[in-house]
Amino acid sequence: VTTSIAELDTLVEQAQAAAPAVARASDATRAGWLRSLASKLEEHSEELVRIATEETHLDVNRLTGEVNRTTGQLRLFADAIIEGSYLEATIDHANPATGTPDLRRVLLPIGPVAVFAGSNFPFAFSVAGGDTASALAVGCPVIVKAHSGHLRLSERTAEIVTLALQEEGAPAGTFALVSGRDVGSALVQHPGIRAASFTGSVGGGRALFDLAAARPDPIPFYGELGSINPTVLTRAAIEARGVELASGLAISFTQGIGQFCTKPGVVFIPDDSGFESLLVDAVSERPGGQLLTERIATAYPEGLRAVSADPDVTVVYGRVDQGGGDSDAEPVVLATSAEAVRTRPETLLAETFGPTTLLVRYSSAPALHAALSQTPGSLTATVHAEPSDDIEELVDLLSARAGRVLFKGWPTGVAVTWSQNHGGPWPSTTSIHTSVGVSAMRRFQRPIVFQDAPATVLPPSLLESNPLQIPRRLDGGLKLQG
Amino acid sequence: VTTSIAELDTLVEQAQAAAPAVARASDATRAGWLRSLASKLEEHSEELVRIATEETHLDVNRLTGEVNRTTGQLRLFADAIIEGSYLEATIDHANPATGTPDLRRVLLPIGPVAVFAGSNFPFAFSVAGGDTASALAVGCPVIVKAHSGHLRLSERTAEIVTLALQEEGAPAGTFALVSGRDVGSALVQHPGIRAASFTGSVGGGRALFDLAAARPDPIPFYGELGSINPTVLTRAAIEARGVELASGLAISFTQGIGQFCTKPGVVFIPDDSGFESLLVDAVSERPGGQLLTERIATAYPEGLRAVSADPDVTVVYGRVDQGGGDSDAEPVVLATSAEAVRTRPETLLAETFGPTTLLVRYSSAPALHAALSQTPGSLTATVHAEPSDDIEELVDLLSARAGRVLFKGWPTGVAVTWSQNHGGPWPSTTSIHTSVGVSAMRRFQRPIVFQDAPATVLPPSLLESNPLQIPRRLDGGLKLQG
Repeated sequence: VTTSIAELDTLVEQAQAAAPAVARASDATRAGWLRSLASKLEEHSEELVRIATEETHLDVNRLTGEVNRTTGQLRLFADAIIEGSYLEATIDHANPATGTPDLRRVLLPIGPVAVFAGSNFPFAFSVAGGDTASALAVGCPVIVKAHSGHLRLSERTAEIVTLALQEEGAPAGTFALVSGRDVGSALVQHPGIRAASFTGSVGGGRALFDLAAARPDPIPFYGELGSINPTVLTRAAIEARGVELASGLAISFTQGIGQFCTKPGVVFIPDDSGFESLLVDAVSERPGGQLLTERIATAYPEGLRAVSADPDVTVVYGRVDQGGGDSDAEPVVLATSAEAVRTRPETLLAETFGPTTLLVRYSSAPALHAALSQTPGSLTATVHAEPSDDIEELVDLLSARAGRVLFKGWPTGVAVTWSQNHGGPWPSTTSIHTSVGVSAMRRFQRPIVFQDAPATVLPPSLLESNPLQIPRRLDGGLKLQG
Repeated sequence: VTTSIAELDTLVEQAQAAAPAVARASDATRAGWLRSLASKLEEHSEELVRIATEETHLDVNRLTGEVNRTTGQLRLFADAIIEGSYLEATIDHANPATGTPDLRRVLLPIGPVAVFAGSNFPFAFSVAGGDTASALAVGCPVIVKAHSGHLRLSERTAEIVTLALQEEGAPAGTFALVSGRDVGSALVQHPGIRAASFTGSVGGGRALFDLAAARPDPIPFYGELGSINPTVLTRAAIEARGVELASGLAISFTQGIGQFCTKPGVVFIPDDSGFESLLVDAVSERPGGQLLTERIATAYPEGLRAVSADPDVTVVYGRVDQGGGDSDAEPVVLATSAEAVRTRPETLLAETFGPTTLLVRYSSAPALHAALSQTPGSLTATVHAEPSDDIEELVDLLSARAGRVLFKGWPTGVAVTWSQNHGGPWPSTTSIHTSVGVSAMRRFQRPIVFQDAPATVLPPSLLESNPLQIPRRLDGGLKLQG
């Protein structure tokens, strides 16, 4: 079903009409919405996972885990708004000596938010995913643009969200789902929308980013776009645990059929380390599988061909010429040199969605650093080293290029916690904010300060008596309560 | 002196080269830079104020006060980075039960920052102003684009900044000044610049915003653009203290010759309240004065003519046909109806820099609210009411349109404190951040998380022992120290 522009207008008007009541709902009330939604998703988990397997070709275990991540996320955000730090309540009492007035700052919900769902996480980055949870948590109505890759699941999830919100007494207009290609452009340009979030390709994200920025009144556009997630293995690490690293890498770049934004897409390895044959052994045990959508299935062999057309690229494992369409995508390992990456980063480091990774052989630390310095911004960067390795410069290089730097394990798998950061330099993210973890909520808040306000107009967070018992900063000093 | 593009390239390269060392400098070291700079500005205050009076036509008292605000701002930011909350250090220890890794989040400096100085605050929003202080505080090199309205002052201030940083041992490249119109466009588009801040007109700000957004790698652009700062007076307030309100308003819209971004540019008053004659009396005691630049002097009578050309606008005080050029700008009070504002907000609510304000007569609360709902985003909104007034709906309307809502006093005058917010909905600001107050620093930081990192690569803020003794969130709980 495609939403017409007239229908979209009505839905945005309803969101705008609901916004003041959603903003005024207490933290306890909104926490109730999120918890109720989490319970409802759990209740319907089996049905939802069944629809998702049919639409996305992802397996039941993976999808069931994703539902749990999604409900855990909703409950974490409920806890976080009750804790109250997310309001950044800050009070400076009047100082007659300096003539400064009484100033009380808090973060307010920004208003109706447009959420563009991703293809690859039909739960965690879709209708009831992290962006929706973030916006509802801080008090913003949400309009989700469904991903065309899982429309039935989107509609069923939206029914569940709507029912949960209704049962909890949330205002009509708090949530809506729209679908259709044109409706996406109209949504991000709609005067009633105050912020937008997006998970997807660099091309699609850039187009929407440009529309958001070109508005008469530009709005924040939180895009999570492509990411190649550089990984570095030192010689000492391969000597110490080469088999384990090969096995971990093989799982990481092939799981979810290589369709994670955190897939390790480029792996720097020392020359003649023997790692390639270890990886070939490990990958040979990994299954392929059907990709999420026809478009991704077509793009996968195209991407493989584009990279392997480079004269300095060799195929280490698998077939570049693959079927596309309904056939399973097979794992492929390519290899090249650090010098080739340094000179042709655009060609060699283009993101290829699917079960492939590019090994980059380096002969020396300077050669490695020179290639890394041409690597675009990523969500993650990983280094596997031994205590004997001097990695200080390497860590600086990776920190400058990523929002999460790992020293163990693999970047696929993103824990939803207070400290998590899922956002890195362009193009991996279009902002200085995260889309996963508690601080993702900050994207949909704006600051306001009340000057010399009577208590009757102040929100509870700013009342002298601190009825919410939240952490606040009083006259410059952080207080946990009171 | 105009900076050439070749010189700009060299300066940005130097800033990029300095960035890692500036980022690595300890909070105590950077606090030392800011404090030393504050002391140096005080030492040279008389000389700087003398140059500023010559270039800006602002008076000595105002300018001396502004130097104090600027040095106070530098010292407040020094205190804030020592306090350490600005790092948002957050640690989630590994949880073997759930399989989550050890995650440690902190905010890093974003990299070299371009600061576009404003015309109207030659100290507080210029070379050593709030944007420069914010960027240096968090560890970013700064390149300031001087405002053409006070070039000699900019150069002299830059010498003092450079000397202070040199004496404190800051890396070469930490700070630079550039000037010239073309250099501004080149600066915001330069690949080495990671964020930009701007104080000025909607037209100039929008042009730079568009350039920042159109980059191959868009960067955050923190513009503080036009603002009309709606003010509402209730009948009860005028009856209780009309003379005091008239006097306060007259001072607020004429001080600094009406060249504050927080000037109350539109004042809603009840029909037949008698306030207009009180205001005329009060304004008649207020001097005019020479405007900051020739361009502003030309634009002032143009702006007056544009608004007063509306058939529903009358001149309550002063002359619309004024000289421009070197002659003093004289105060002007215009008046219209709420209905006219509701139907023609673009014409009537255009910002006019200079000593003028527009009175808007309202006949009822609905008429007032209808006009207010057409008012564009502003830095501030002010309401003067009595306890007998029901202002709940009014406060909601104003809160939706401003970043600071005042209930006493006048919006000109912005205290620099922990809680201050100087930023409102578009066009007053291009982001969800403030340009004044401690949280202005957040504009130039980006989050990063270290996963399972050895202590040897962690910044001090994330070490288990908390050597900086800063507030941190540990496993979800906020701790003041330790």
